[in-house]
Amino acid sequence: MIYADNAATTKMSDTAIRTMYSLMNECWGNPSSLYTHGQKAKEILEEAREDIAAVIGANPREIYFTSGGSEADNQAILTAAAIGKKKGKRHIVSSAFEHHAVLHTLEKLKKEDFEITLVDVHENGLIRPEEVEAAIREDTCLVTIMYANNEIGTIQPIPEIGAVCRKKNVLFHVDAVQAVGHIPVHVNLDCIDLLSASGHKFHGPKGVGFLYARKGIPLTNLIEGGAQERGKRAGTENVPGIAAMAAALKEANRSMSEDAARQTRMRDMLIEGLSQIPHSALNGDVKHRLPGNVSFCFEGIEGESLLLLLDDKGICASSGSACTSGSLDPSHVLLAIGRVHDVAHGSLRLSIGADITEEEVCYIIRSVKEVVAYLRGFSPIWRDLMSGKKEFIL
Amino acid sequence: MIYADNAATTKMSDTAIRTMYSLMNECWGNPSSLYTHGQKAKEILEEAREDIAAVIGANPREIYFTSGGSEADNQAILTAAAIGKKKGKRHIVSSAFEHHAVLHTLEKLKKEDFEITLVDVHENGLIRPEEVEAAIREDTCLVTIMYANNEIGTIQPIPEIGAVCRKKNVLFHVDAVQAVGHIPVHVNLDCIDLLSASGHKFHGPKGVGFLYARKGIPLTNLIEGGAQERGKRAGTENVPGIAAMAAALKEANRSMSEDAARQTRMRDMLIEGLSQIPHSALNGDVKHRLPGNVSFCFEGIEGESLLLLLDDKGICASSGSACTSGSLDPSHVLLAIGRVHDVAHGSLRLSIGADITEEEVCYIIRSVKEVVAYLRGFSPIWRDLMSGKKEFIL
Repeated sequence: MIYADNAATTKMSDTAIRTMYSLMNECWGNPSSLYTHGQKAKEILEEAREDIAAVIGANPREIYFTSGGSEADNQAILTAAAIGKKKGKRHIVSSAFEHHAVLHTLEKLKKEDFEITLVDVHENGLIRPEEVEAAIREDTCLVTIMYANNEIGTIQPIPEIGAVCRKKNVLFHVDAVQAVGHIPVHVNLDCIDLLSASGHKFHGPKGVGFLYARKGIPLTNLIEGGAQERGKRAGTENVPGIAAMAAALKEANRSMSEDAARQTRMRDMLIEGLSQIPHSALNGDVKHRLPGNVSFCFEGIEGESLLLLLDDKGICASSGSACTSGSLDPSHVLLAIGRVHDVAHGSLRLSIGADITEEEVCYIIRSVKEVVAYLRGFSPIWRDLMSGKKEFIL
Repeated sequence: MIYADNAATTKMSDTAIRTMYSLMNECWGNPSSLYTHGQKAKEILEEAREDIAAVIGANPREIYFTSGGSEADNQAILTAAAIGKKKGKRHIVSSAFEHHAVLHTLEKLKKEDFEITLVDVHENGLIRPEEVEAAIREDTCLVTIMYANNEIGTIQPIPEIGAVCRKKNVLFHVDAVQAVGHIPVHVNLDCIDLLSASGHKFHGPKGVGFLYARKGIPLTNLIEGGAQERGKRAGTENVPGIAAMAAALKEANRSMSEDAARQTRMRDMLIEGLSQIPHSALNGDVKHRLPGNVSFCFEGIEGESLLLLLDDKGICASSGSACTSGSLDPSHVLLAIGRVHDVAHGSLRLSIGADITEEEVCYIIRSVKEVVAYLRGFSPIWRDLMSGKKEFIL
């Protein structure tokens, strides 16, 4: 199996699995308990908090553990909305290609009389800080922009957008689920006030993530109950999962530049190889791009069939986000960068790990070429394109 | 170490750890992915759903995975409130000794003009179905009562309360976090509409739980985002954790009657032994009680010192709920059953596992006796009680 869907989820690193296994066996006490066995769990929890904070340049007291990126996104946005509401500020700036955890939360806020402005994503999948600045109004309480897009991998100019928010005195939330552990993220240099991350996207376990909230930001509780996480997130802390996430993040951070260099080389080989397929196009900017992300549209095919045939060849890939793969609608991300429906349907995302080999990259290129040609062989759209009945877009 | 705090959390069973370990290594795909590796994870997820549904007499489609009991409580109550609101019904019946995940969610609803009636818990820690019936009004949209109390272990007459709710056509939510895996719970026989449970309370992993919602109940999303859990709970599913929870629950269910019989015998030994301590009292009914729960108040001592000295003797115990152990307030549960502040401060909860030995039970009794006597030796309250300056309550 060649796994090229690391944006959907990653395999836990050996270190993360070892950490989890040893804590499940040895340090499974409730960190709220007074006895030594519980206090040991508490220590491990706080060490994990320190380790994670250090990686993103935060103070440990600014880290709140959640069940994952979606929960963190929800809590961050509802927090900013609650703060805004109190000041009579009910306007939020975001973009059309955010993750659904952001977009659906914004939809919910619309029903509570919040107004949302979505800045343009542009054809290259990049947001322009000056357009964010122009969208900010007197009553703007939040700007929420993702660090790197989960489908097309474009990396936004976060420090610049952060500086705009700082200047305008508006809270800045960043869904950094695809960025943390892969590219440098620093909450202070990037002027970020609220940040969401997810363990299983950087070789940590599933079901655990974290929310960074700058000191002084009063979090709105999403889950009410016990006094865990300084009263801001109830529920017994998943200490083994949290510690495994911290171990994975430390490890990812240590090898980040080396991994990224290797991934970038492999990614560029893939981009070059797949670009040879006629009537294909890379989605998103070539340069401002996650080291592991390759996203293409191929005219005249259905992404779903492409994936199933690649699976037959032992290649795990996706058409876009895994979260919405059940849906027949074309990706909202690809529509946001201006792909038309027909083209957006023929999409392929390869998100490679640092351990992919050159041989595997060559095998992927060969396989995609074969499968695209095969599918076009009996695609009615392709027939129409070839006969001139329809016009090529790519 | 003698672990007698299973109500706070349990050690994962070997089966649960094995399941988790093997899935973290082998079946870590994203269940929303189309390729085989993801679809295998999807199968495991659905098997877990079936296994869990079977244990509580539900249909698999009525099970929604969450990050734990608190999240499930929050979602269940907000769901019933949303349904009620649409019908102009803004009254909820509950009790004063519910878990904070329930009580704090109800507090939140109060701010949205919901009215809450808390039925009496009575001295024995039991709720009377006829009092629930009397509390239900034309505008009641929900009754939420826990199956078994987390501090004093009393088991409520859930089938009778359920029948009342059914008769009055009111939704019935049950926080069954302490019950599932320990005593028989059956959503149909018990007339339950919404039920919350948590994996780590029955030897499953932390950070995972489930919400049962009877078919036809439109859930309100707590976490917005991807289309996971039929669109009702966003976030990549924690498949290894969910499968480990299912494995733990199946196992707990299989050995339930045997475990309960053994625990009951050990529990009753503990109750008998600790009752010999002068000016002590068991909290909650003797009969309608979780097989593993022993809860006492000792006059003239501070629960916290008791716990620390028991810890020195290798015994893990708690004063009440772990979730609130950071707080200096006496337990809201003990106050609800009529214990006065002074007495409530001197509480001890022992929640034993099925594997505790007679020797361990004897050691606990001996240790508690010693420590209580020791602490009373320099307690100013005890001096006042002994000199007649204060009157004994117990």
